[in-house]
Amino acid sequence: MRRVITIGREFGSGGRELARRLAEGLGIEYYDRAIVREIAKRTELEEGYVDSVLEKASLSKFPITEGRTFYDLNDPVFDMRQSIYLTQTNIIKEMAERSDCVIVGRCAEHILKDYDPLKIFVYASLESRLKRCRERGPEEEDLTDKELLKKIKGIDKRRAKFYKGFTGDDWGDRRNYDLLINTSFRDIKSIIPPLINYIEESAKVYFKAD
Amino acid sequence: MRRVITIGREFGSGGRELARRLAEGLGIEYYDRAIVREIAKRTELEEGYVDSVLEKASLSKFPITEGRTFYDLNDPVFDMRQSIYLTQTNIIKEMAERSDCVIVGRCAEHILKDYDPLKIFVYASLESRLKRCRERGPEEEDLTDKELLKKIKGIDKRRAKFYKGFTGDDWGDRRNYDLLINTSFRDIKSIIPPLINYIEESAKVYFKAD
Repeated sequence: MRRVITIGREFGSGGRELARRLAEGLGIEYYDRAIVREIAKRTELEEGYVDSVLEKASLSKFPITEGRTFYDLNDPVFDMRQSIYLTQTNIIKEMAERSDCVIVGRCAEHILKDYDPLKIFVYASLESRLKRCRERGPEEEDLTDKELLKKIKGIDKRRAKFYKGFTGDDWGDRRNYDLLINTSFRDIKSIIPPLINYIEESAKVYFKAD
Repeated sequence: MRRVITIGREFGSGGRELARRLAEGLGIEYYDRAIVREIAKRTELEEGYVDSVLEKASLSKFPITEGRTFYDLNDPVFDMRQSIYLTQTNIIKEMAERSDCVIVGRCAEHILKDYDPLKIFVYASLESRLKRCRERGPEEEDLTDKELLKKIKGIDKRRAKFYKGFTGDDWGDRRNYDLLINTSFRDIKSIIPPLINYIEESAKVYFKAD
C-alpha cells in the first residue's frame, strides 16, 4: 500500500503543523524545506532566491510544460521562474515515487494527480488564523491586528491566483479535495488520530496495493 | 455534553446514509421524515403536499421572519409556503433543544447557528453519484444516464438556489461547515468510525458541557 497525501492550506490555519504531525503519526516522510533545498541545488540558485520566487508567485498565466521549457532570451526572469517551477514539479514527482509522504502546498495535488493522492485542504476563520499567527511566534509581533489580517489575506490571494494560473482550478474548491477540515480554534493535535483512522479506511478504497 | 450535528449533502452523495449511520453509531436521534410528519400535523396539511413544497423550493428571495408570518390574502400559496418553512424552523429548533441529534439538509446549520452544531457537508463526483443512485433502488431505473445526470444536477441547483435565498450564503461553501467529506466511490460505512472519533475529539472544543 502506498500513501501520498497532499495538504493545501490557508495561511495561519495550522495546515503545516497538521501535515508534520500527520506524517509523524503515519511514520512517513514530510517534505517542506527539503523541496526548496533540492531546487536550489539543481538550479544552482540561492535558497533565498528560490524562496522569494516561490513565495512571490504572481503569474496569472503560467505556461508550464512538463519535460521542457520555453526559452525566451528577452525575458531571463521569466525563464528563471519557469525553470524553478519545472524543477519543483519534477522533484515533487520523484519524492512521491520514492516513498510514502505528506507534501504541503505547492499545488502538489495537481502535480501528483496521476499518483492518486489523498487530497486534504485545511482552512479556518480569519479570527482563528489571527490568533494562531500570534501564538506561533515572533515573526509578526510588530504588526497590528489590522496589518496582520492584511498580510493573511494578501498571502491567500497570492496563493489563489497562482493556483488558478498553474492548475486552472479554484484554490480551496471542494471538488479538488477528498477532505476539507476547518481548524478554527482547534488543537491541531486532536485532529490527527481521527485523520489517521480516516486515511487507513480510505486506503482500502483510494490506494492500490503494491 | 450536547451533540447537534447537521449534514448538508449533494443529491446522490450518500449523505443521508451517512447521517443515519452516524446517528446510530453515536446513539442519538436521526431526524428526517419525522420533521415532515410533524409539519403536516401542525399545519393540518397532507404530508405529500408538505413534501412537494419542501422539495420544489424555488424561492429566490424568501422573507422568512422567525416568530411571525406576513399574511397576504392576495397570495395564499406564498402564505402556505411561508407557514411551512416557519413551522419547519420551529420544529428543528425544538428537536435540537430536546436531545442530541443528526439533522439532514433543511438549512439546519443555518437555523441552528445559535446551538453551535457540528456542521458537515457531504459531496461526490457526478460519476460516483450516478453510480450510487443506480445502486440505491428502483426509483430512477427507467431513466437513462443522461436523464439521471440531469435530475441530479437539477436537484442540486434547486437546493443551492433555495439555500442562497434562505440563508444568504452559498450552498456547500466551506466557510459554512466544519468538515467537508468527498464520498466518491467510498463505502459510507468506512467513514463512520473515524468520523465518530473526530466528533468525540471536536466535542472537547465545540460543545459546551451541560
